[in-house]
Amino acid sequence: MAGLMNRQIIVKKRPVGMPRPEDFELVETPVRPPGENEVLRHAIYLSLDPYQRGRLRAEESYAPRAEEGQVMVGDTVSQVIESHDPRFRPGDFVVGRDGWQEYCTGDASGLRKIDPSLGPLSYSLGVLGMPGMTAYVALLDVGKPKAGETVVVSAASGAVGSVAGQIAKIIGCRVVGVAGSKEKCDYVVQELGFDACLNYKTEDLTTALREACPEGIDVYFDNVAGDVLAAVMKNLHLGARIILVGLISEYNADPRPPGPNLHPLLVKRASITGFLVGDHKHRQEAFLNDVSRWLKEDKIKYREHIVEGLENAPAVFPWLFEGKNFGKLIVKIREEPKAGD
Amino acid sequence: MAGLMNRQIIVKKRPVGMPRPEDFELVETPVRPPGENEVLRHAIYLSLDPYQRGRLRAEESYAPRAEEGQVMVGDTVSQVIESHDPRFRPGDFVVGRDGWQEYCTGDASGLRKIDPSLGPLSYSLGVLGMPGMTAYVALLDVGKPKAGETVVVSAASGAVGSVAGQIAKIIGCRVVGVAGSKEKCDYVVQELGFDACLNYKTEDLTTALREACPEGIDVYFDNVAGDVLAAVMKNLHLGARIILVGLISEYNADPRPPGPNLHPLLVKRASITGFLVGDHKHRQEAFLNDVSRWLKEDKIKYREHIVEGLENAPAVFPWLFEGKNFGKLIVKIREEPKAGD
Repeated sequence: MAGLMNRQIIVKKRPVGMPRPEDFELVETPVRPPGENEVLRHAIYLSLDPYQRGRLRAEESYAPRAEEGQVMVGDTVSQVIESHDPRFRPGDFVVGRDGWQEYCTGDASGLRKIDPSLGPLSYSLGVLGMPGMTAYVALLDVGKPKAGETVVVSAASGAVGSVAGQIAKIIGCRVVGVAGSKEKCDYVVQELGFDACLNYKTEDLTTALREACPEGIDVYFDNVAGDVLAAVMKNLHLGARIILVGLISEYNADPRPPGPNLHPLLVKRASITGFLVGDHKHRQEAFLNDVSRWLKEDKIKYREHIVEGLENAPAVFPWLFEGKNFGKLIVKIREEPKAGD
Repeated sequence: MAGLMNRQIIVKKRPVGMPRPEDFELVETPVRPPGENEVLRHAIYLSLDPYQRGRLRAEESYAPRAEEGQVMVGDTVSQVIESHDPRFRPGDFVVGRDGWQEYCTGDASGLRKIDPSLGPLSYSLGVLGMPGMTAYVALLDVGKPKAGETVVVSAASGAVGSVAGQIAKIIGCRVVGVAGSKEKCDYVVQELGFDACLNYKTEDLTTALREACPEGIDVYFDNVAGDVLAAVMKNLHLGARIILVGLISEYNADPRPPGPNLHPLLVKRASITGFLVGDHKHRQEAFLNDVSRWLKEDKIKYREHIVEGLENAPAVFPWLFEGKNFGKLIVKIREEPKAGD
C-alpha cells in the first residue's frame, strides 16, 4: 500500500443553480492506512443521485452538508482491501457512502456487506440499494396501496420510480407513470408494464391525468414535486396519500419555489407525507428478500446508465436534473475484480 | 300554521372576493306544512362559519354548493313545531343544517336532538357542535399529540382553535396560539391558558414561532393556511403532523394562491392531512361526553359573539374572514322559548 495514491473529487465551491464541472476539482492524495477498527476499501462503482444536490446546499437538512474542500458525498460499491474490523475481510464487497473517490479509509459504521448471489454488484446502488428500498418502503408502508387502486409515479423510468411502479403492479394496482420523453414513456409501458405513462414535456398533465385516472389518484409516489405535484393535486381521489420522496424539480432553485395550493387535501381528506429511507432500517431484510426474488422472477426489470471514469462524475451529475440519463446513473470507477482477486 | 310566513336569506349571486350584503337577499315565502316523515322546525340560532364561504364558490368541493336563488347554507338550532317522524316531537330542540331562514320543512336526516342538560342551546353550534367536534377529533385522532409535545393552533381565539388548544393543554402539551389582535392574544393566554399566543398582524411569525417553540412544532392545528402555515413549515420538529382543518386566509381568493414549499416535510419526515369532521360521526358520543364534562369542570372556556336578527347575517358574515368577531359568531333569530313553550 505504500505510495498508493487516491483520486478524489472535492467540492470546490457550492453550486448556484445547476451544478457545473467547475464547482468540483479532481485531486490526488496519499491513501491513509487503516487504524484500529478501520477498514480500507477500493471503490468499483459510484452512485449519482438527486439527493446529493441537497448536500451541496448551505441550508439545514436531514444529513450533514458536503463542505467546500471536502470529498463530494456519494454512495459506493467497493471491495475491502484491508480490515481491522472483525466483521469485514479483504475481498468482501461492501456498499457505503464513501464519496466521489477511489479509496476510502474509515470505520465500518456505514458499511453493509453485499451478498453477490442476489444480483450484479452495481445493483446495490439501485434496485437492491437505497433507491430500491426507498421505493419499496415508501410505497408499501406509507402509501399503502390496495389492489385496484390507482397509483401515479413521477420520474417513472428512474431508479426509484421504476421500482415503485413495478411493485404497485405486483400488488394489483393500476399504475400510471410520468416521464420526460417518448422513449422513456414507451419503456415504462412496454418494458416495465405500467398501464400508461404521460410525457410531462408534451402533455397538459392536469388534463392527461384526468383522462388516465378517471376515478382519481389514490396514491401518488412523488419524486419531483413542482408542476407534476400541482397537476396531481387537481386529480385526487377521496383519501389519497401522497408520498413526498423527492423534489427533483426544485433542487437547483434558490429560494425554493412555492408549493401547490393545499385545498384539495381538505376536499379529498388526503395527506402528503415526507419520507426518508434512513428511518426504516428495520425493513432492510424484507426489502432485499422481496426485491431480489422479484428480479429473479423477472417481475421487476431494471435499467442502468453506466458512465466510465470517476473524472466524468461532475459532468454527468446535472443529467439527473435535466432528465438526460435513462436508467440508474452509475459511474464505473474501475473494472470489477474477477472471482478470487 | 295557516298563513305562517318564513323569512329567508337567499343567495342572489355568487360573491367575487369578500362577500357583500348585496350578494344576498331577504325574501318572505309561506311556510310549507310537513308531509310524510317530515319535520317542521323553527330556528332560534344560526351559526356563521368559514366553511359557508366555500359553499358559495362555483368549484367542486366536498359538499353541495349553495346555488343562486336558494337559501344560504348554515347550521341552526331550532325547536320542532310539528313532526311526522317518530324520532322527534314538538318542543324538541334540534341542531341541523337548515340554512339562513326562520322555518324549515323537510325530512329529519340531518337533524340531531340536543340534550339541554349538556349546556346552553347555542353551544350546539360551537363548543358542543360541529366546530367543537372538529377540534376534538382532528386534534386527538389525526394530530395525536403526546404529553410534552408542542402544539400550535391558528385562529386560536376562534370556535375551533380555542377548543383544540384547550384540549391539547388538558392532555399535557405545550400550546402556542396564533391570533390577530392583542386583545385576542391576551384572552388566549390569560383566559384559555395557552402557554403563549403570537399576533400575526404585528410579529414576524417565522421568528416568533422559533422563539416560542425552540424544540420545533410537533402538531400544527391549521385553520387558516397561508402565511401562518408557511411560517410553521419553517419550524417543524421531526415527525411533525399538520392537520389541515381550514384555509380561512384564502376562502375569498380566486384563483387560490400557491401553498408553502413542501421541502420541510421531507427534511422532518412530517405530514399534512386534510380533515373533515363529517367523516367521523362515530366519535360523536365520545366528543359530547368529554367536552361537556370539561366545560362543567371549567377546563374548557368558551366565548360567543352573538348578533341579533336574521337580517343582519349578510353584513356580519365577512367578519369571519376579517377577524372582526371575537368568539363563536352566532346570529340570534329569536328569543329562546321558555320551558314549557
